[in-house]
Amino acid sequence: MQKFDSSMMDFEERVDIDDFESEVMERIYSKPLLIKRVNTTSQIAIVGANVCPVESLDYEVPENELVNEDWRSRRTVQIFQYILLKWAFALIIGLSTGLVGIFNNIAVENIAGFKLLLTTELMLKHKYYKAFAAYAGCNLGLATSAAALCAFIAPAAAGSGIPEVKAYLNGVDAYSILASSTLFVKIFGSIFGVAAGFVVGKEGPMVHTGSCIASLIGQGGSRKYHLTWRWLRYFKNDRDRRDLITCGAAAGVAAAFRAPVGGVLFALEEAASWWRSALLWRTFFTTAVVAIVLRGFIQLCSTGTCGLFGEGGLIMYDISAAKVVYSTPDILAVILLGVIGGILGSLYNYLVDKVLRTYSIINERGAAVKILLVIMISLLTSICSYGLPWLATCIPCPADASTSCPNTDVSGNYKSFQCPPGHYNDLASLFLNTNDDAIRNLLSTNTVKEFHISSLFIFFVAVYCLGIITYGIAIPSGLFIPVILAGSCYGRLVGRLFEPISKLDVGLFSLLGAASFLGGTMRMTVSLCVILLELTNDLLMLPLVMLVLLISKTMGDMFNKGVYDQIVKLKGLPYMEAHPEPYMKHLIARDVVTGPLITFSGVEKVGNILLALKNTGHNGFPVIDEPPFSDAPELCGLVLRSQLLVLLKGKAFSKDRVLAGNKVLRKISELDFAKAGSGKGLKLEDLDIQEEEWDMYVDLHPIANTSPYTVVETMSLAKAAVLFRELGLRHMCVVPKSQGRPPIVGILTRHDFQPEHILGLYPHVRFQQ
Amino acid sequence: MQKFDSSMMDFEERVDIDDFESEVMERIYSKPLLIKRVNTTSQIAIVGANVCPVESLDYEVPENELVNEDWRSRRTVQIFQYILLKWAFALIIGLSTGLVGIFNNIAVENIAGFKLLLTTELMLKHKYYKAFAAYAGCNLGLATSAAALCAFIAPAAAGSGIPEVKAYLNGVDAYSILASSTLFVKIFGSIFGVAAGFVVGKEGPMVHTGSCIASLIGQGGSRKYHLTWRWLRYFKNDRDRRDLITCGAAAGVAAAFRAPVGGVLFALEEAASWWRSALLWRTFFTTAVVAIVLRGFIQLCSTGTCGLFGEGGLIMYDISAAKVVYSTPDILAVILLGVIGGILGSLYNYLVDKVLRTYSIINERGAAVKILLVIMISLLTSICSYGLPWLATCIPCPADASTSCPNTDVSGNYKSFQCPPGHYNDLASLFLNTNDDAIRNLLSTNTVKEFHISSLFIFFVAVYCLGIITYGIAIPSGLFIPVILAGSCYGRLVGRLFEPISKLDVGLFSLLGAASFLGGTMRMTVSLCVILLELTNDLLMLPLVMLVLLISKTMGDMFNKGVYDQIVKLKGLPYMEAHPEPYMKHLIARDVVTGPLITFSGVEKVGNILLALKNTGHNGFPVIDEPPFSDAPELCGLVLRSQLLVLLKGKAFSKDRVLAGNKVLRKISELDFAKAGSGKGLKLEDLDIQEEEWDMYVDLHPIANTSPYTVVETMSLAKAAVLFRELGLRHMCVVPKSQGRPPIVGILTRHDFQPEHILGLYPHVRFQQ
Repeated sequence: MQKFDSSMMDFEERVDIDDFESEVMERIYSKPLLIKRVNTTSQIAIVGANVCPVESLDYEVPENELVNEDWRSRRTVQIFQYILLKWAFALIIGLSTGLVGIFNNIAVENIAGFKLLLTTELMLKHKYYKAFAAYAGCNLGLATSAAALCAFIAPAAAGSGIPEVKAYLNGVDAYSILASSTLFVKIFGSIFGVAAGFVVGKEGPMVHTGSCIASLIGQGGSRKYHLTWRWLRYFKNDRDRRDLITCGAAAGVAAAFRAPVGGVLFALEEAASWWRSALLWRTFFTTAVVAIVLRGFIQLCSTGTCGLFGEGGLIMYDISAAKVVYSTPDILAVILLGVIGGILGSLYNYLVDKVLRTYSIINERGAAVKILLVIMISLLTSICSYGLPWLATCIPCPADASTSCPNTDVSGNYKSFQCPPGHYNDLASLFLNTNDDAIRNLLSTNTVKEFHISSLFIFFVAVYCLGIITYGIAIPSGLFIPVILAGSCYGRLVGRLFEPISKLDVGLFSLLGAASFLGGTMRMTVSLCVILLELTNDLLMLPLVMLVLLISKTMGDMFNKGVYDQIVKLKGLPYMEAHPEPYMKHLIARDVVTGPLITFSGVEKVGNILLALKNTGHNGFPVIDEPPFSDAPELCGLVLRSQLLVLLKGKAFSKDRVLAGNKVLRKISELDFAKAGSGKGLKLEDLDIQEEEWDMYVDLHPIANTSPYTVVETMSLAKAAVLFRELGLRHMCVVPKSQGRPPIVGILTRHDFQPEHILGLYPHVRFQQ
Repeated sequence: MQKFDSSMMDFEERVDIDDFESEVMERIYSKPLLIKRVNTTSQIAIVGANVCPVESLDYEVPENELVNEDWRSRRTVQIFQYILLKWAFALIIGLSTGLVGIFNNIAVENIAGFKLLLTTELMLKHKYYKAFAAYAGCNLGLATSAAALCAFIAPAAAGSGIPEVKAYLNGVDAYSILASSTLFVKIFGSIFGVAAGFVVGKEGPMVHTGSCIASLIGQGGSRKYHLTWRWLRYFKNDRDRRDLITCGAAAGVAAAFRAPVGGVLFALEEAASWWRSALLWRTFFTTAVVAIVLRGFIQLCSTGTCGLFGEGGLIMYDISAAKVVYSTPDILAVILLGVIGGILGSLYNYLVDKVLRTYSIINERGAAVKILLVIMISLLTSICSYGLPWLATCIPCPADASTSCPNTDVSGNYKSFQCPPGHYNDLASLFLNTNDDAIRNLLSTNTVKEFHISSLFIFFVAVYCLGIITYGIAIPSGLFIPVILAGSCYGRLVGRLFEPISKLDVGLFSLLGAASFLGGTMRMTVSLCVILLELTNDLLMLPLVMLVLLISKTMGDMFNKGVYDQIVKLKGLPYMEAHPEPYMKHLIARDVVTGPLITFSGVEKVGNILLALKNTGHNGFPVIDEPPFSDAPELCGLVLRSQLLVLLKGKAFSKDRVLAGNKVLRKISELDFAKAGSGKGLKLEDLDIQEEEWDMYVDLHPIANTSPYTVVETMSLAKAAVLFRELGLRHMCVVPKSQGRPPIVGILTRHDFQPEHILGLYPHVRFQQ
């Protein structure tokens, strides 16, 4: 342990990943793949680690005089208000996410509908080149708008958003991921992106949107526009914000799939790292609100007041018309489907990872290059969508078709395309539709022969490849729909191939194919199962869907991780896994403590604090009581950078080195420590400390968290990691085992538990069990 | 800290609840309500605390030389085998629970069917008194058998079993709750009890049965019958057993309700205290197996090979035929239904609690009194079921009835009872049926006028009261079915009353009524919602079911706790709540440390260990290293009673006080520490230590857990409780803050965190926030 004094100014060399200043964050965030950890003090350079500078979140409840004082002053009615507000927030999140979901759907259906109508009209007049120009032109315009929004306003809005939300709920606040600009771009970028005909979904973006809405609501209005309400400051802490964002993520899924229970389970199984029963209930309430909003609007729109938004709007693939009967050959077919689906799903993950690595190098060359990439992919998509249907032969319309054939509407089966009257082009029914309608067509039951095997094969290959190369370009892009699209096409293909021996409807095979792909890429189980059931309204398929999901997840897990985990890793977010790595058992907590430690006295000189804040990026400082305040040096508690800044701004200084707790309590209240949204907190530059105040003293006791979680230095690293992860800590104090030494050995943060850090220090432990 | 020596023999006075010897456990377990905590050393007697002697479970992973040695020796193929076995166990649990579920249903349907057929036949011959004698006689015989099984073989099998399973998964092993005798009685007692016409369900017992099966499988065969397999010893620890029992509980719900997803969610929301994603998946697999087994048998039985087990078998109330349309007046009606349902549900909890307290006093008077109580309730039930239908007037059969009317079959609507041809008795259709069939009749759709309002009212009152007075008698009795029965009758009644203004089918109202009662008593949300949907096969009701559940749970929470939590409390099981009580913030860890602490040296005299084991009931002892083994006294680790017994049995003693780790490692392996099922471990009496060995030394280092979780004595009790709960600890070491003191202040167990203990020590903190 080294006490801080001005002679020790070599701290700049130490770069703690936790501790980048926010001005460098943005610059570095855009190129996470190229950063190497510089760690000059410990003389170890970790090469190849994907490090991204981010803030950790404070989930721990601090216990200090200020907080206790504040609790004592809260009256019962205030606590009741607080609880009521929590539920009001859940209601607001549900309402707004539901409304955004409706808006998104209406906008996409109308824009894409207009585009498809225009194309179809030109096709009917046999103006094929003009039709292509109109189609590709519309796509290009929409794609460029989406890309421009992403590139210039909010780069963080690109991609799915689920990995970032997942990381946030694990305690990692990636830069500007929940900002209002991100929300804006996510909503409109997603609308333009989906309407532009890309093989992307609106589900991931909806989850991200829900989370952004929740985060903004939890931030208690906007200080910039003087829209704050004093009461909301009680919610300005990371714990309450985490709860709200969990609700938001669940609401997003509920709005995207119209699956309220599935939304809750998604939040539980995939998004959240910590869970408790009270939150389950609140999340359930939020998704119930979403379900009611959606139902209301769908009833409203069923009267035709929403333009081209009609039945094809909110995805809901009702397959309950098909009779579910199956016997042994069907089950064998389904098992085979699950095995191959799992392998294809994990291959999808592998390829997405490779493409993302390439794109991240391309994208960092600037906004123009980003947009150019989007334009290229858009052109390629348009060429595929318009060009490939020419490969299909025209099929005579079936006599017993339930819908009109050929069809010149916006959505639906049996597209006419270039075919003569009385015939339809099956590939066009898949390509020249929105993704939602294409899935509906693939899942349609009692239409065995509608799609040729060759057409299904072409569509499958095209969609599988387009899905892979589209994710990672600078537009908001969900992964669910591409995977469902490819999966349901694969399932229908398998169903056609097994037609001679299986009695199961190809529409049901299609559903199982989608399940197998989802299981193979996302690696969820219960939530996917419930989402699929809610989507298709057919509970009788439950055993088969479970079977397929189990098989495909098992197959996928043999090869690689789930796609969201992969992206979290790729982005370099320091995610804390639920289980410690096996080799951690062979290390002890002291082994991973690095760098010099800076501690403060219980009553510290203002100058020392300022220097420490300026010269290091540390976010937590141990406070040590020394004589005369105690008999021997002992650990009094832990102060956070953010708390110190508030304390210094309050200027409760004294001339002498004395306890001045009351003075501090009079000047500052707990509410002053309310944590602002990321990047908006008090900064060192905001302080205005006079020269003469540098030599004054400030009492840290009132703000020090007197109950930090500690581990003895000889605690096995695995058990320390369990403690850190289960309690959602930001800092963990390592204390000495033997007596007569300074009362603290070091502080561990989540970065110290990252495999890259540990294996950098001890490369040989990797192969120990 | 006091070192143990023979001059300190006053330990007998100290009664630590954690530490009752097993011989007193049984005696005291049967009267949990009357025990007062005797705590003479600390001079505090806690009056009125309901204390039940139980074992705590060891979920913590020990880290010591032996374990590390063992890990090093395991080869990859062994780890693979271990994982494979886990899945094999899940498969076996699913299969056996499914089979037991089927067996249970077939048995109940046949026994109850025979009884009802006999009664109906005598009724048709107008031999009304004989019919009653036959009916009541059958009931009485079955009830007495169930009660005798419970009273003489396994008292732990009485009741639902869900509270005990919930407590087990929280770390509390109540005596013989998962024994094989309990399993046997639970299966047959439940069959007899349900067939005897009691207002009890088979759902709680199924959950308990699933858990028992899982526990027995996890125990690795039977030592008594030499059916052990060496490999299974790897599963002989509380962590793996907890996982298996979670799977078992989920399988139980899946088998009882044919609701695989609902089963997983039940285990997640209600049963389990800790959860992780890997377990979610395994549980999902188990319930999928159950679903497949059930489906297979139902197909088999549909050919008529299962006797009277037919459509009425496994409960499945398909209401998807009813059209779900609702508007504002319906929603208002539903809200009102939810509010009143929630209040009635919490009143149910209140009354069950009162009745249980009375019964527990009656039941402790011996087996004969227990059986007498069962006989009385059985007679009362028979009188109600047979007598009350006479109050109903005969109703002419409707012309458009889809089933035969009047009906003289075992199950079904439109029972003829005493009515003339062409008429039916609506109350008899409810009373003289199995509970499952009565629910099916209540939930039947498109049959608005079938039941008179007065009949519904009579049935509701009777079932509500019978349900309350039946729970707690000495038979296995589930709570789900009584609540669903009363709730669906209540819902149908409300539906009839709102008929003029509401368009919703009364069958759907009935479902919502059941939901409101379930929400009001059980206080679950997502799992109930999914179970109800899987039961009724109608996803379109989802928003309304969610709404009702939310309202009724909110209403119920205003008055009291959920019924299972209430029973856990009543049984005096030291359940660790997820959140610390507010007043714990005002105490520190040192405040609740009580009693003298016994510590061992790193190399300790055999005699001292024997004395400590004999004279105290402590289960964990800190090991302190002293000079010459270290520079100053320091905490080396923690040993458990069970480990010490194994170590002493191994007799790795030495004449001198020297480190002898290798000697110990040669004599004992990690597998010797495999934990047997509750009550089956090594006992002090099994040791055979010679007089001369008392003065020899034994090295505790190889078995001491060197990484126990510790808290500093000044840590706030609230945060210590969070640590204890989240990590599932059994012992937590409290270490001193200042230097120069002995290295450990005390040990906290789950009992030290119980409100009774804390409020006994500090009654005044209760009112602090």
